[in-house]
Amino acid sequence: MVAPDSPQSGMGHAITINSTLRCTKVKLDDGPQQEYSCSGTPADCVKLGVHEILKRKPDLCVSGINHGSNAAINVIYSGTMSAAIEAGIEGIPAIGFSLLDYAWNADFAPLNPYVEKITKSALKNKIPESTVLNVNFPKRKEGEIKGIKICRQANAYWIEEFDKRQDPMGKEYYWMTGEFINNDKGEDTDIWALENGYVSVVPTHFDLTAHHQIQKLNSWTF
Amino acid sequence: MVAPDSPQSGMGHAITINSTLRCTKVKLDDGPQQEYSCSGTPADCVKLGVHEILKRKPDLCVSGINHGSNAAINVIYSGTMSAAIEAGIEGIPAIGFSLLDYAWNADFAPLNPYVEKITKSALKNKIPESTVLNVNFPKRKEGEIKGIKICRQANAYWIEEFDKRQDPMGKEYYWMTGEFINNDKGEDTDIWALENGYVSVVPTHFDLTAHHQIQKLNSWTF
Repeated sequence: MVAPDSPQSGMGHAITINSTLRCTKVKLDDGPQQEYSCSGTPADCVKLGVHEILKRKPDLCVSGINHGSNAAINVIYSGTMSAAIEAGIEGIPAIGFSLLDYAWNADFAPLNPYVEKITKSALKNKIPESTVLNVNFPKRKEGEIKGIKICRQANAYWIEEFDKRQDPMGKEYYWMTGEFINNDKGEDTDIWALENGYVSVVPTHFDLTAHHQIQKLNSWTF
Repeated sequence: MVAPDSPQSGMGHAITINSTLRCTKVKLDDGPQQEYSCSGTPADCVKLGVHEILKRKPDLCVSGINHGSNAAINVIYSGTMSAAIEAGIEGIPAIGFSLLDYAWNADFAPLNPYVEKITKSALKNKIPESTVLNVNFPKRKEGEIKGIKICRQANAYWIEEFDKRQDPMGKEYYWMTGEFINNDKGEDTDIWALENGYVSVVPTHFDLTAHHQIQKLNSWTF
């Protein structure tokens, strides 16, 4: 287990290339796992874990469980999912888990059977090449989770608002806030699944080519 | 123009949500443009620029010109391309430009006619919805650039190596280094275009769903 030593919300797929990294062995409990605390980003943790600590490809990389949704466009801002995607880029089967609950003391227990089911199924069926799983859990008690749905990423976005303030020296600064807007009502989306009590599983890839637009762009003249 | 006040290499799609942002008006030259220096990430710059400074959607967002390649998998680690992608998410036509030259005094002049051609063509033909353009320039003199090619992102990756050192207190730290591996020899890739003297244009999207894998995952049992 390699984890960042500070909160990494909104860190996206950042990596540390212009400064140094620290990685310290720690001991959190008496479990069999080895634990490391890393000064870098979630993607750095995967790179360090694989190449410097483990020194081989693991059978599976799991990331999370994140506090808060990584459904829809949140996947692109997510440190948790970027760690899973980093593993995917390196050819390692990977799953990112997130729970729609920001509370520091969120109850992860109802997720246990689902984490186990999804992980075992991923190992048995093998996650397709160049694909990682983005798993989000609704905030529900165990008996109230309706099941698991394979979904696509909803086409939703954030509308930013900036809270402008003055510091004690009279200079302006901002806090970024925002409102999540989902106009995508598709029942095949992760947002629909979560709102209706299902665990959402989105197969996620890192080829950002909009292949279906190549033909159209080839008709442009320059 | 809103630019980060410090280098943002490898910043990916990070945004600033757990700390404050500064944005200061500056004057770099006598041009007609208004210029702002921002303490945040490239994606923050777009959010602040659109919602707090311009207060409307611009006709076009251009990002760069980046020093160094954002071809192939580099797109995912790139601050420059994340700014363009952020604009795309917000429904703004957007282009990211990068030059395969890390030198601080890299010569951008040979790119001028291409930047103009691509920008004008993008405005005239309209960039398709939910798509942004990832443009990379080879390091060549103007007469030696062969033309513009619409490409797909090459399936390449980085093999990390960590340079482990000791600080003056005897504690270990790391510098991340790496080697770029491209086993994708397709002549329709951005890497091929750049190696052969062409400007590469990759239509890039931010729906990370691996749509072609949904059917396969639906056959899994949980």
